[in-house]
Amino acid sequence: MTTPHLAKGYRFAGLHCGIRPDPDRRDLALIVSDVPAAAAGVFTQNRVRAAPVRVCQERLPADDARGVVICSGNANACTGPRGLEDARAMTAVAARAIGCRAEQMLVCSTGVIGRHLPMPQIESGILAAVPLLADTSIAFDDVAHAILTTDTRIKTATREIDLDGVAVRLTGVAKGAAMIGPNLATMLAFVFTDAAVSSDDLAVIARRAADQTFNCISVEGHTSTNDTLLLFANGMASSEGKGSELRTQNSELGTQRFAAAVTEVCAELARSIAADAEGATHLITIEVEGLRDDREAYRVAKTIAESALVKTAIYGADPNWGRIVSAAGYAGVAFEEEQLSLWLGDLLLYHAGVPQLFDAASASAYLKREHHIQLRLRFTLGPGRCTFWTCDLTREYVRLNAEYTT
Amino acid sequence: MTTPHLAKGYRFAGLHCGIRPDPDRRDLALIVSDVPAAAAGVFTQNRVRAAPVRVCQERLPADDARGVVICSGNANACTGPRGLEDARAMTAVAARAIGCRAEQMLVCSTGVIGRHLPMPQIESGILAAVPLLADTSIAFDDVAHAILTTDTRIKTATREIDLDGVAVRLTGVAKGAAMIGPNLATMLAFVFTDAAVSSDDLAVIARRAADQTFNCISVEGHTSTNDTLLLFANGMASSEGKGSELRTQNSELGTQRFAAAVTEVCAELARSIAADAEGATHLITIEVEGLRDDREAYRVAKTIAESALVKTAIYGADPNWGRIVSAAGYAGVAFEEEQLSLWLGDLLLYHAGVPQLFDAASASAYLKREHHIQLRLRFTLGPGRCTFWTCDLTREYVRLNAEYTT
Repeated sequence: MTTPHLAKGYRFAGLHCGIRPDPDRRDLALIVSDVPAAAAGVFTQNRVRAAPVRVCQERLPADDARGVVICSGNANACTGPRGLEDARAMTAVAARAIGCRAEQMLVCSTGVIGRHLPMPQIESGILAAVPLLADTSIAFDDVAHAILTTDTRIKTATREIDLDGVAVRLTGVAKGAAMIGPNLATMLAFVFTDAAVSSDDLAVIARRAADQTFNCISVEGHTSTNDTLLLFANGMASSEGKGSELRTQNSELGTQRFAAAVTEVCAELARSIAADAEGATHLITIEVEGLRDDREAYRVAKTIAESALVKTAIYGADPNWGRIVSAAGYAGVAFEEEQLSLWLGDLLLYHAGVPQLFDAASASAYLKREHHIQLRLRFTLGPGRCTFWTCDLTREYVRLNAEYTT
Repeated sequence: MTTPHLAKGYRFAGLHCGIRPDPDRRDLALIVSDVPAAAAGVFTQNRVRAAPVRVCQERLPADDARGVVICSGNANACTGPRGLEDARAMTAVAARAIGCRAEQMLVCSTGVIGRHLPMPQIESGILAAVPLLADTSIAFDDVAHAILTTDTRIKTATREIDLDGVAVRLTGVAKGAAMIGPNLATMLAFVFTDAAVSSDDLAVIARRAADQTFNCISVEGHTSTNDTLLLFANGMASSEGKGSELRTQNSELGTQRFAAAVTEVCAELARSIAADAEGATHLITIEVEGLRDDREAYRVAKTIAESALVKTAIYGADPNWGRIVSAAGYAGVAFEEEQLSLWLGDLLLYHAGVPQLFDAASASAYLKREHHIQLRLRFTLGPGRCTFWTCDLTREYVRLNAEYTT
């Protein structure tokens, strides 16, 4: 049974191979495109890059990618030359089993840092995954579970659009910025599409989508060593689709619509990550507008999103506009107080530099009632804008990240 | 009774004027130099500057300062034109009472943001403080208490050095980066010396000292609207000291020694602030060495100091080197893993990019046993170094900052 929204020509498998002790937790995923696909990636900016990130960066963008193998429970980060060998071995084992070159496979890992992968279990797991590969929603669901770490729920997003007369599908899946074991937040996201798009176009589209989505979420501002977004396009939507042979020259309008759909899928996944952050009780959307350019708006939004004082205030249902205004003030963006107004939901708290008389009880009630909180800052300096997502900082976050001991 | 270490020619008073509801909490301080003093300041980099910060910035550096009036419990920040009028009025009332021009007095506030000052209580308080002014350790102690907000203890530091044959004293007092009511961290620090130093030299010395001390502490990275360091030098140490008439041309060596003493006093105050941060159970010293320049070392140290993951790990006594290495990795400083080694106390956890086999139990015991934790990162890229102080992130911090409701 093929789910309508799954992109055509991809098969999925997720299973437990033994990285995690709990036999009920899936920890290995394999995704294969039936034909060679264009592929592009966006990766962590951390100077310390995990071995699988380095391997993907060597291989992308590509015109003949066949898929990706992913393990959770171990990040394969800070593992030296052996870590690189292990990451390459994962792609080689998967490639042999499905019948392609190792260089056509990609690899991701997420989990504990600084430990070598249990390669015998992983290699057996990959071999066991191949016969399970299927284009069903159940198999896709297995993948969505297998990549999770401390996430409390799976994160998927799908779209179907018309691209120059062809109905194309985008299938997205991600895992969140939550800790695994004692270690790092690691965001992984994958978007599979049956559209025909060149790898060069994919690379540009992936970068732009990430800038507006995954680069606009923050849990605690700690950039992981493993962050990865991979985008695959195999062209199987078209009846004449034959992998790399197919026409990838879409119209300008078509490409724009496709890029917008990629961004929408990524935004949905990004919001899911912020909403499911460790210990979070609120998803917070921060809209900043009216700065000189988008970059300035981004800096203000990110600084507010990463302020422990703003995040604890929202956790405590305290409409503490002073913390928000002062966080904007140290974002490194020039403004005068008179050029700033601030809303919490529909309530105007601060107008043109002047504190407003507002009903603190109803503001607090809004924070207690709603899971999804809206903050809006309006400056009067230009057209620059940004939407950013974050979560509150709770005692549960501190407990989760303090009480684990190795 | 004059305490040996109090700088000569300063008188102090601290009392309860009524900003705070609790009559046992002092909330107003007045410090007066008997003669006009050179004065300089270093202020918050926040774009949103409280009214007293603006007033001090207008007046400094100065050659004829007579003192400072400080209130706690209300930050006089985000209070518009009336806030500026109130801050100026505080200096005018104090100046009239001690017999100088308003422009010779400085002013600081710390506490709740966005509320107008209760000026009748403050003005009465200033008038009541004048007859209490004394050069005693008891009066100085009253000041040290009157400037506190949620600090749990007073913060003072003193030095006595020889400056070109004259024994000079430095008397420092500060309040910490802790919240007041629902609102902002605000650091205030004051150093009074009876050395004879020009205001231009003082300004340079204050800036350099702040860069190595108060700019090297972080609780949660939220820059306040009120941060202020004021440095006064009245020349009263010398028998011929007569305020602004005196010789302020010290030898180069003498000036260096004086600047070093100022930095020492500031460093002691800064460490006290980090150690007494809200909810903190550990003071953490981060030493970074071997980067291309001090600025790079500063960026790495500050990024680690502000990582919620590093801070929760130390709270949880978890020797989680992966969080520290990965925080260094996103500091925006170029390095390869092979160029970094990391120690926790005396334990080498990570050497030249390779995780070390270390005794996790004894590392955890060190974190549980010691209040003051040492992290040392050594790079192999140059002479740049930085020492930075921070604290752990605890459930008590979250509770304190979440559970207050206005």
